[in-house]
Amino acid sequence: MTATRDSTGADTRERIVAAATAEFARYGIAGARIDRIAKAAKTSKERVYAHFRGKEQLYRFVSGRELTAVAEATRMDPADLPGYAGRIHDYFTTHPERHRLMAWGQLELGPDDTPDDDPVRQTLVHKAEQLRAAQKAGGLDPDWDPLDVLVIVNQIATSWANQPGLAVEIPQQDSADYLAARRAAIVSAVQRIFPAAEASSGDAL
Amino acid sequence: MTATRDSTGADTRERIVAAATAEFARYGIAGARIDRIAKAAKTSKERVYAHFRGKEQLYRFVSGRELTAVAEATRMDPADLPGYAGRIHDYFTTHPERHRLMAWGQLELGPDDTPDDDPVRQTLVHKAEQLRAAQKAGGLDPDWDPLDVLVIVNQIATSWANQPGLAVEIPQQDSADYLAARRAAIVSAVQRIFPAAEASSGDAL
Repeated sequence: MTATRDSTGADTRERIVAAATAEFARYGIAGARIDRIAKAAKTSKERVYAHFRGKEQLYRFVSGRELTAVAEATRMDPADLPGYAGRIHDYFTTHPERHRLMAWGQLELGPDDTPDDDPVRQTLVHKAEQLRAAQKAGGLDPDWDPLDVLVIVNQIATSWANQPGLAVEIPQQDSADYLAARRAAIVSAVQRIFPAAEASSGDAL
Repeated sequence: MTATRDSTGADTRERIVAAATAEFARYGIAGARIDRIAKAAKTSKERVYAHFRGKEQLYRFVSGRELTAVAEATRMDPADLPGYAGRIHDYFTTHPERHRLMAWGQLELGPDDTPDDDPVRQTLVHKAEQLRAAQKAGGLDPDWDPLDVLVIVNQIATSWANQPGLAVEIPQQDSADYLAARRAAIVSAVQRIFPAAEASSGDAL
């Protein structure tokens, strides 16, 4: 891991991560090829294995990093879950390949394989704590289990990211009006379940 | 079963479909192997190709059949979408491998590959018509686009089917109370967005 910062160091590692992100998003974990990743990263298979023990470890690193990127870009605000859902929708509308990247892991990695320090799990636990704090502070209906809140908001927010085959049948699917209407439906649906606090400033807690 | 109707007839075809359903659910389309399907169906690769032109055609047949099975088992009722969501949840809780079967197709088949007579598309168009009729009859808020309704209800209903990696961190995840609470959250979420008509009899339109 420490390897060398010079000819085979941090830059190579970054190129491997970038190439792996594209490869996994396109082909999934089983379908990804380390030799294609190495070639795209202008390095060798051996160097990829020197940085990451194997294909699954590389996937876990890449998807963990992506999870951090989504969380930073969408900033969950327990007092404004509809706004949060809108931001998730925007993020994956702009980066559909990143939704694919995460979706493969849901299908290909069984729960039994998930290590305790898995970033998906850690992010989830952290967000559940934020929601619990908001429930105690009166900003969110305490009857909901925080995990249900997270999963339901995420499911609604990714409604169209999950349906690549459906969108195509709709005319003008790329028009601004069409896209704005899909976004509005998502925000409205979340608003009806988890209404934003009236005084919400839009800032993350 | 009755073995061969004639030696290459309907029973062989049924065995191929059953074997293909299991194979695709486990490995996806790219990962599925026709020789494993043939072996599990006690036939030859050549006979599989005689019944179905190729692996993707076989997947489309199998997933189309599954879609019909889900639709029949869950019976969409535009006047009671919360109840419909609960039935979808029940169906995929009982048959998680069938959710996997469909999820692979969403990832692996691009929208450009989707033929006009694709069963997913046809089912969707049919259900959208049912919802439009309910909107005209006053049973459902006409402000919603029927496709948003279908996708959002489906997303909420499959909240836990989509999260195999999450459930494991929750203690007592197999307890009846735990499962009942997850189901109740789903039904309640849909009820807040698309309230069931008061006089709903539970019958499908």
